[in-house]
Amino acid sequence: MLIQVEDAADPRLADYVRLRDMDLRKSLESEHGLFIAEGEKVIRRAVGAGHPVRSILTTAKWVERGLPDHIADVAGETTVYVVSDQVMAGVTGFPVHRGALASMGRTALPEVRELLNGTRRIVVLEDLTDHGNVGAIFRCAAALGVDAIVLSPRCADPLYRRSVKVSMGAVFAIPYARMIDWHGGLAEIRAAGFRTLALTPDQSATPLDEVVMAERVALLLGSEGDGLSSHWLKEADQPVRISMSPAAMELGVDSLNVVAAAAIACHGLLRR
Amino acid sequence: MLIQVEDAADPRLADYVRLRDMDLRKSLESEHGLFIAEGEKVIRRAVGAGHPVRSILTTAKWVERGLPDHIADVAGETTVYVVSDQVMAGVTGFPVHRGALASMGRTALPEVRELLNGTRRIVVLEDLTDHGNVGAIFRCAAALGVDAIVLSPRCADPLYRRSVKVSMGAVFAIPYARMIDWHGGLAEIRAAGFRTLALTPDQSATPLDEVVMAERVALLLGSEGDGLSSHWLKEADQPVRISMSPAAMELGVDSLNVVAAAAIACHGLLRR
Ligand SMILES: C[S@@+](CC[C@H](N)C(=O)[O-])C[C@H]1O[C@@H](n2cnc3c(N)ncnc32)[C@H](O)[C@@H]1O
Ligand SMILES: C[S@@+](CC[C@H](N)C(=O)[O-])C[C@H]1O[C@@H](n2cnc3c(N)ncnc32)[C@H](O)[C@@H]1O
Repeated sequence: MLIQVEDAADPRLADYVRLRDMDLRKSLESEHGLFIAEGEKVIRRAVGAGHPVRSILTTAKWVERGLPDHIADVAGETTVYVVSDQVMAGVTGFPVHRGALASMGRTALPEVRELLNGTRRIVVLEDLTDHGNVGAIFRCAAALGVDAIVLSPRCADPLYRRSVKVSMGAVFAIPYARMIDWHGGLAEIRAAGFRTLALTPDQSATPLDEVVMAERVALLLGSEGDGLSSHWLKEADQPVRISMSPAAMELGVDSLNVVAAAAIACHGLLRR
Repeated sequence: MLIQVEDAADPRLADYVRLRDMDLRKSLESEHGLFIAEGEKVIRRAVGAGHPVRSILTTAKWVERGLPDHIADVAGETTVYVVSDQVMAGVTGFPVHRGALASMGRTALPEVRELLNGTRRIVVLEDLTDHGNVGAIFRCAAALGVDAIVLSPRCADPLYRRSVKVSMGAVFAIPYARMIDWHGGLAEIRAAGFRTLALTPDQSATPLDEVVMAERVALLLGSEGDGLSSHWLKEADQPVRISMSPAAMELGVDSLNVVAAAAIACHGLLRR
C-alpha cells in the first residue's frame, strides 16, 4: 500500500529519523527491535533471511521509474511511504541514493551453544566498536569459508546500517551469536572442542604459517586500539601472529588493521 | 604563537571549515595546497615527512593541560589558534576529540618514473574512490613490505583527512605518485620492468598460490563497484585471483573488499 507523506516530522516516519546519528539510532533501534536496510539488494537479502518488513520508505521519483520487482513484491504486503527528495533528506539527515529504505524487524539471535552446532571454522570478535570493520569481516568470512561468527558482549551491531552496507549483505548470510558473558565466553567455545587461536601482532606469538590446524578452529580478533584483552590472550590455546615487514616498525606501523588481519588469517588457515 | 579566536566565522580559521563536507574540502584543499592532520601522532608524522605547518587549531582545554611536546615544538614556529570546544565544533562541523588539528602544506609528488627507482614491490590502485579503503591499503602496504604505491589519475587522495586517519599515518611512510595518463600509465610501469599482476575475482584467473614471482612485481587493484578496467586487465601480464569458498557465491558474496584482497595478495606474494 503506497502512502504519500509530505512532512518530515510525520510520526509514521519515526523508524527512519537521523540515520547518521549513531547514539540516537542505537537506542531507537534496540528499543523498537528494528534495523534499516538500504537499497534493493540489501532489502531482498534481509527479507530472504527471514526478517519481517515493518515499512518501506522511498521517493516519488523512484516510484515513477517503477519499483524494482522485489520491492514491489514485498510492498504488496507492507506500507510504502512515498516522499519527495527533500522530505527523504529531512527525515534521514542525508540524501539517500539507493532509492529505498526498509525498516526491518529484528529476529532473536541463537545462543552461542546453538550456533556452534555443526560448525568447524569460526571467528570470534572481541569488542570491535567500528561498524565498518565488523561489516567488512562478515564479508571476508563469507568469502573465505567461515561457518559462523561469535561477538563479545560489547562488539558493534552487525545490523547497524553501516555494518550491513559494508558487509554487502553478508550479515544475512553468516550465522552469528553474541556472548552474554565476556569473562566465561571463551571457555564455552573451548569446551565445545574449538582450538582457539588468538591473533596478535606480538613478536613472541607463533607465525601463521607454522600453526597446526585442528578439527574445529576459532580465530580470535581484537579491537583497533587495545587488541585482544589479556584475559582472552591468556585463555586462548595459542597466540598467532602474521609476520610483518621488518621495515614496518621503522615506518611507525606496528599492526595491521583488523580487517586485513582477518582476511590474511582466514585465507591462510581455513583452506587447509 | 598562541592566538585566541572567539568566532567560528573568523577568516583565519578558513583552512579548517566543515571538515566533513567532502566536496567543499576537495576543492578547498587542492586550491590552497593544504591538507588537515588530526591528532598529535599524525601531526608529528606529517612534519617528519617534510610537510610545512601552515597553522594549528586547538582548544583552550588542551592548552591548559599542556600541549604535547612535539606540538609545543612545532608551535614555536607557527601560529596556534586557540578556541573553545563550541567554536571548534562550529568551524569544523563536529567535536574534535584528538585535541589538535594542523593545516599542513602539500609538497610536490614525485613523477611515476622517479618513484619507481630502486623499488621492487609496488601496488597500483585504479580509481579507488573510497578514502577509507585507500588509507587502509597504505597501512597494509607499509606493514607487508610494499616499496611504493602508484595511483591512477582518478584515485582518491591519500592526504584527505579520512585516508590519513585510517592509514594510521602510513601515507607519510610509503612513497607514492599519481599517474597523469590513465591510458598509458600501465605501459610505463611495464616498461620499467615490472611484472604486472591484475587482481580479479574472475574464475579464469591464475590462483594466487600458483603465481611465479619476478624481480619486480606490481599488484593492480580495482574499485569496489567495477573492479579493474578491461583496458588494464588486458594489458596486465597476468590476471590473478584469490580463491574464495565454494559457498561464497551461494551466500551472494562474489568478491572480497579491496582492502582484504590487497592484504591477502601482499601477504601471499611479497614474502617470497
Ligand atoms: C589494530 S590491531 C590491535 C593492535 C593492538 N595494539 C595490539 O597490540 O593488539 C587489531 C587486531 O587485529 C589483529 N592483528 C593486527 N595485526 C596483526 C598481526 N600482525 N598478526 C596477527 N594479528 C594481528 C589482532 O587480532 C588485533 O587485536
Ligand atoms: C570489490 S572488488 C571488485 C568487484 C568487481 N565486481 C570485479 O569483478 O572485479 C575490488 C577489487 O578487489 C580485488 N579483489 C576482490 N576480490 C578478489 C579476489 N577473490 N581475487 C582477487 N582480487 C580480488 C580486485 O582487485 C577488485 O578489483
